[in-house]
Amino acid sequence: MDIRPIGVFDSGLGGLTCVKRLMELMPGEDIIYLGDTGRVPYGGRSRETIIKYARQDIDFLLRHDIKAVVAACGTVSTNGLEEIAGDYPIPVFGVADAAAEAAVSATKNGKIGLIGTKASIRSTAYDEKLLRLMPEVQIHKTACPLFVPLVEEGRTGEDDPVLSLVAEQYLADLRDAGVDTLILGCTHYPLIAGTVGRIMGPRVTLIDPGAQAAAKLRRELYKLGGLADREKGAYSYFVTDSAEDFARTASLFLGFRIEGSVKRVSLEERQ
Amino acid sequence: MDIRPIGVFDSGLGGLTCVKRLMELMPGEDIIYLGDTGRVPYGGRSRETIIKYARQDIDFLLRHDIKAVVAACGTVSTNGLEEIAGDYPIPVFGVADAAAEAAVSATKNGKIGLIGTKASIRSTAYDEKLLRLMPEVQIHKTACPLFVPLVEEGRTGEDDPVLSLVAEQYLADLRDAGVDTLILGCTHYPLIAGTVGRIMGPRVTLIDPGAQAAAKLRRELYKLGGLADREKGAYSYFVTDSAEDFARTASLFLGFRIEGSVKRVSLEERQ
Repeated sequence: MDIRPIGVFDSGLGGLTCVKRLMELMPGEDIIYLGDTGRVPYGGRSRETIIKYARQDIDFLLRHDIKAVVAACGTVSTNGLEEIAGDYPIPVFGVADAAAEAAVSATKNGKIGLIGTKASIRSTAYDEKLLRLMPEVQIHKTACPLFVPLVEEGRTGEDDPVLSLVAEQYLADLRDAGVDTLILGCTHYPLIAGTVGRIMGPRVTLIDPGAQAAAKLRRELYKLGGLADREKGAYSYFVTDSAEDFARTASLFLGFRIEGSVKRVSLEERQ
Repeated sequence: MDIRPIGVFDSGLGGLTCVKRLMELMPGEDIIYLGDTGRVPYGGRSRETIIKYARQDIDFLLRHDIKAVVAACGTVSTNGLEEIAGDYPIPVFGVADAAAEAAVSATKNGKIGLIGTKASIRSTAYDEKLLRLMPEVQIHKTACPLFVPLVEEGRTGEDDPVLSLVAEQYLADLRDAGVDTLILGCTHYPLIAGTVGRIMGPRVTLIDPGAQAAAKLRRELYKLGGLADREKGAYSYFVTDSAEDFARTASLFLGFRIEGSVKRVSLEERQ
């Protein structure tokens, strides 16, 4: 048993969809969450900047004696995370690896779709991960830059006409391509899985990377004998912009009000 | 005659709509533009963070021997710019002051509308400016957080169904309130003035703060004898994220391809 906390980071609040899955799957674990809300979103930034920010995020979490790091940020986990993961003394993995493994297990016709931010789609990280696991895979990708602002405006209802119109436009090509598996390549997207699923149809399996990462982490910790087998863990949240704003919007992603402390920190000064 | 350059800054690229007006009105001026693309958008951030960023932006411009600073960022010019403007040895003003003056001149029924980012609308800076100029003014405000991502996705056409649907929803209350003047309180909005104008109707005057700031600066420099009366000025652009990305998207806001150098700089390290 290893009672050290699990560290999770994201560019903003979206990574809380992954934290929620971790809480459900492993209720005994302490979790430390870092949301880099002062610099969100990472999606439109250069690869070099994304790697710099990811290092600062991981360095911050490491100062809290954690046993593993999950990069809950789709952008980070497809832009250089593999390059830097080996530099750390504990397991560091991103949601993308877990999602790629799950997608390959799920697909029957070998046609996998991927939606994400511009940076995630521009990156070939998912292609490489999928091709390594399934050399004959066909990959169809579409950037959906309006999904994040729509979710953050709370337009997640299946009856929202703007969300439906935008989603129809974004997803038409993927549907026409006949993918049977679709990776929701951004932490925000599980919140609009209802609309995405309705448009893609019932035969398409949606892959939620945060849920897959939580399941993968549980398997790895179990193998290592590193699960914290307690009744209930403690949660701490750190953000790089206003802590009040965080507490207010976090419930959107968690589905319940925040328990545990929320503190504001500066990553730049700590360099 | 004062041939020192004019400094203009914004959180990203939107401020180029103001630069374009400056170029048209004062073709002889040198212009130095700073787009803080590494930390865009400022709109959702706390007031404290916005002021910190604004100081870093102004400090950077001051190192280029400029004669005036225009904060082309609606968020900055309504979140603390007045507090810090007096700390500098040259004129520093934001697009909001110029827009408030123009709106008060334009309105006949005293009902002025304002649209902007969440932070601009949450702030009472425009209210204070308008009330100071016209104590009996009625102000109607609406945050339009999806307009920026829509513009940045290039959905600016009057026939774009998503833009039209979103704009109809955002603007309905303002139209019903009977405003006869509407301040486009975000640098991106002049690009969708066609759609906003169509929905608001022909009797509503749209106020473009960037254009008003350019006109105000020209008047002030003329009074001081500080205009650079040359055939053509030189332009330099600085960004805090990828310079290539900047050059590619800047034409969206300028309406022409960038002339002059684009350099990437780090504001954090210079502190």
